[in-house]
Amino acid sequence: MTDILSKIKPSVRGVQAYTLRPLDAPVKINQNENPFDMPEAIKAAVYRGMNQKAWSRYPAFVPSTLISRLSDFTGWRSEGILMGNGSNELIEAVLMVTVERGKRVVVPQPTFTLYKLITTILGGECEEVFLTHALEFDVQKLLEATRRADVTIICSPNNPTGSLIKLSDLRAILKVAAGLVVVDEAYHEFSRQSVVPLLNDFKNLVVLRTFSKAMAMAGLRVGYLLAHPELVQEISKAKLPYNLNLFSMAAAETAVEHFHLLQPQIDLIIQERERLYGQMQNISGLKAFPSQANFIAFKTALDPTEVFKALYADGILVRDVSRYPMLEKFLRVSVGSPSENDRFLASLRRILTVAKAFAYQPAD
Amino acid sequence: MTDILSKIKPSVRGVQAYTLRPLDAPVKINQNENPFDMPEAIKAAVYRGMNQKAWSRYPAFVPSTLISRLSDFTGWRSEGILMGNGSNELIEAVLMVTVERGKRVVVPQPTFTLYKLITTILGGECEEVFLTHALEFDVQKLLEATRRADVTIICSPNNPTGSLIKLSDLRAILKVAAGLVVVDEAYHEFSRQSVVPLLNDFKNLVVLRTFSKAMAMAGLRVGYLLAHPELVQEISKAKLPYNLNLFSMAAAETAVEHFHLLQPQIDLIIQERERLYGQMQNISGLKAFPSQANFIAFKTALDPTEVFKALYADGILVRDVSRYPMLEKFLRVSVGSPSENDRFLASLRRILTVAKAFAYQPAD
Repeated sequence: MTDILSKIKPSVRGVQAYTLRPLDAPVKINQNENPFDMPEAIKAAVYRGMNQKAWSRYPAFVPSTLISRLSDFTGWRSEGILMGNGSNELIEAVLMVTVERGKRVVVPQPTFTLYKLITTILGGECEEVFLTHALEFDVQKLLEATRRADVTIICSPNNPTGSLIKLSDLRAILKVAAGLVVVDEAYHEFSRQSVVPLLNDFKNLVVLRTFSKAMAMAGLRVGYLLAHPELVQEISKAKLPYNLNLFSMAAAETAVEHFHLLQPQIDLIIQERERLYGQMQNISGLKAFPSQANFIAFKTALDPTEVFKALYADGILVRDVSRYPMLEKFLRVSVGSPSENDRFLASLRRILTVAKAFAYQPAD
Repeated sequence: MTDILSKIKPSVRGVQAYTLRPLDAPVKINQNENPFDMPEAIKAAVYRGMNQKAWSRYPAFVPSTLISRLSDFTGWRSEGILMGNGSNELIEAVLMVTVERGKRVVVPQPTFTLYKLITTILGGECEEVFLTHALEFDVQKLLEATRRADVTIICSPNNPTGSLIKLSDLRAILKVAAGLVVVDEAYHEFSRQSVVPLLNDFKNLVVLRTFSKAMAMAGLRVGYLLAHPELVQEISKAKLPYNLNLFSMAAAETAVEHFHLLQPQIDLIIQERERLYGQMQNISGLKAFPSQANFIAFKTALDPTEVFKALYADGILVRDVSRYPMLEKFLRVSVGSPSENDRFLASLRRILTVAKAFAYQPAD
């Protein structure tokens, strides 16, 4: 029996685990969740369906009903759809079949931290392409990096900045890419744009989607991947069997079937995002960035961690993103319900007014 | 845009995906499921709890209540417990933090196919140590191989043979092991033995458990890992955040709390296994192997695929394991309810009687 940590790969020893401080608050606008929850009619239909199912039996090996509904929903063919226990699992599957030591993964920064974490654990190199000063995708640099990349991962709308990639820019990237281009569309419903139609033209495109945001199912963990069937067949080798449980599968089937009940929630979230952004523009001492997602990144002249704490003392939980590259002065706020957004705005105004009584440098 | 399959790692291109033909039958005894389903009282308590939960909110980052109950249940400390979306996910996490090109994973054969599949995808080498002719663990050969292994994975009771490793043999293996020794205890409840107490003495031991078998929750996907906290911390880096959904988490918490309702089911399954084994011993033309799990592997003089088909024609679905190494002549039957077992025995007798009318070589 030798020192057991010596058996852990150095690429793993060197990384920090993905963590989130377990905090709660009356106004929880820190995880980009749908503030309205799943409509009761959908919940009731799912519970009714579950009454006929044995918990002791494995789920279907291939969730055909769900896949067929998603095929109708997305306009992409069934053989090109793979289900995951959240889209996180599908990010992992894509990287497992492509990345090993010596492979290069291009990732715009700042972005969702899991891409780099998994790449590193698998022994790959992560090449980071920074967003512009305006927090937009730096397309020229991306084009250059993608030419030499085994995988490129673009989160669009991007978490935590809300930046959206233009379809024409993505086309250009797909044309020059040496490897796979993964577009994580977790927030696409809030941008009213999808890259799915490009799947018809580009065999190297992989699209990830989730039920955790607009679809109000963060608690149930369902994601899906869309790509060319040949590619899906290879990626599926790294997807674990029976990864989707009975309950979440039924919930996803029902949510897609009754999407008309979710659309008004999405419309309201978009409307509230624009209202929130407009109001934040009028608060002196902070700068909000335009977003195509259900959250807004904003810069403050004050220490963001102090602003986070002051909001939290008011019962409002936002996300401190100040440890992301480029975002040293930033927080991120999810779009909540109208009253939650009002409480956030009032609290933020109060904090900045108090702070103004002291000397501080306004954000540019 | 290059040929996209060229970007898939050769170690992935070379393997076949884990698959199972989607078949169903009135008597489904092919997946080692608990035939009695979750007791209604437990189901009802879970549904009641779910009524207070928003589906749109992420689950707790660390499922503390469940972990604390499992700590009481297993006698192992909370910091040494990691939850998974089925134990499959935890097998993957262990291999992700230890395996890359050049690493060697020792696996007894025949066994659950996923260990080798994931090892191969990660670029590692799988060294297979065959069971003895009696389908017992070959401890001498395992001791030798483990000395040079980065990881050794022992499924005990072993799927699909039912073989159990002796605690004294496992101790010897743990003492000489160069790396981690993973014991997959998916079926431990049916053997009335657990290797968990050895965790106190061996920092290189990792124990995997599942709610899919005795705990009647195959449909809900919950597994857990027990190991030294230092090791758990490293393995957790490859575990995806929010891997356990709200519903399955609540179900697992409640099942552990009310384990006294499941224990009688387990006792009956063990009793039925012994009855089934005894009866199968009396059927000429087949040889059943003793099992400490909730299934029995048996050898037939006839073509096993034909026996499988004949059983299926009678409404009985067993598992054809004839493609596993060493098991060319084998099928595996899960222990069902008493009446399911009766139907299986009657059908098997009938098939062998008919076959006897033709010339065949009896099994040794």
